[in-house]
Amino acid sequence: MKLFGYWRSSATYRVRIAMELKGLEFSYEPVNLLKGEQRSPAFLNRNPQGLVPALETEEGFLLTQSIAIIEYLEERYPEVALLPADAAARAHARAIAATIACEAQPFMNLRMQKYLKEELDFDDAAMKAWLGRWPGGAMESVEALVERYGAGFCVGDKPTTADCFLIPQMYGALRFGVDLSRTPRLKSIHERCAALDPFKRAHPENQPDAVRT
Amino acid sequence: MKLFGYWRSSATYRVRIAMELKGLEFSYEPVNLLKGEQRSPAFLNRNPQGLVPALETEEGFLLTQSIAIIEYLEERYPEVALLPADAAARAHARAIAATIACEAQPFMNLRMQKYLKEELDFDDAAMKAWLGRWPGGAMESVEALVERYGAGFCVGDKPTTADCFLIPQMYGALRFGVDLSRTPRLKSIHERCAALDPFKRAHPENQPDAVRT
Repeated sequence: MKLFGYWRSSATYRVRIAMELKGLEFSYEPVNLLKGEQRSPAFLNRNPQGLVPALETEEGFLLTQSIAIIEYLEERYPEVALLPADAAARAHARAIAATIACEAQPFMNLRMQKYLKEELDFDDAAMKAWLGRWPGGAMESVEALVERYGAGFCVGDKPTTADCFLIPQMYGALRFGVDLSRTPRLKSIHERCAALDPFKRAHPENQPDAVRT
Repeated sequence: MKLFGYWRSSATYRVRIAMELKGLEFSYEPVNLLKGEQRSPAFLNRNPQGLVPALETEEGFLLTQSIAIIEYLEERYPEVALLPADAAARAHARAIAATIACEAQPFMNLRMQKYLKEELDFDDAAMKAWLGRWPGGAMESVEALVERYGAGFCVGDKPTTADCFLIPQMYGALRFGVDLSRTPRLKSIHERCAALDPFKRAHPENQPDAVRT
């Protein structure tokens, strides 16, 4: 398999965590979002959405969107499972992943922040208020789910797809200064995951295209 | 099963379509978003995220987030299937659903539009530009996937989970005046689905809490 991604892309990071937790072999092809390589004709021909991640499967199909890619990996490579066996717990893990993917990350990603600064003239204070209201608010609602369903990780006592989504979101939240004082459970899960080898291998700063500043 | 929802909520509408396509029996309990009932103590006790839809299962569990609810329904009630049998086609259907859920709808929903008008002083022209750039841009990228994978419906020649997400998005896009001239395939699928009974039964205006103005 080949994963097209960018070291700091939150959605690429989710897929890397899932693949590392499952112990899957894959090659990694960087697509430099800062240079706009996702909009090059060659990449658009592969993925008309012009976004990373994209996964080329063993059979040669190109899959897009991290939610869809991770569901594919779970069906195609069921061991190590990233969804619990219990039907309600599966739904809770997916609900946490969906909250992060639909309510937190879209308001924090590179192209949105660029738009807010360049088109709406957001200054630092306006950006802080935006990040607190949207990604911050969504993370508080994830905290409430984790309070109900977590036991060390987001759902239960093993990493699930929910943790694959949480950890990249926490990485971005820390990078952009989102207030995490109201999400202590998420902070604690983030610290627990940071100590585990699959999460370390998937970390942005351990990717070949990482740029240290 | 009991579905907590609101007639015009796009995410509730997705779940209604999925349940109608599967022919499932369910009761419907309206939660009036305009009156803020989703933030009442009684509802927050059920669903700490304070959002609709929420599904109470036959076993009495409360599930949240439309993506997670529809995956649950697909696993628990596999007939009528809303995901294709083929692994790549399943991923494409989920990718379209995810694009709508993560890149289109979050920028168009009630609470975001309220925020843009009240907090950022958006006028009609600013709102139109925003809707064209964000939901509009996402729908163009869905159009590109449908061009590759559709054959009458979003993926192949039968309704899938992708159509469960598309139709509510089109309903909202028409309501808010998003330009659809660049997404002719989506327009055509929307017209095809509108003629089918399960989609008719799921339509916002056919719900008990619909308000005709």
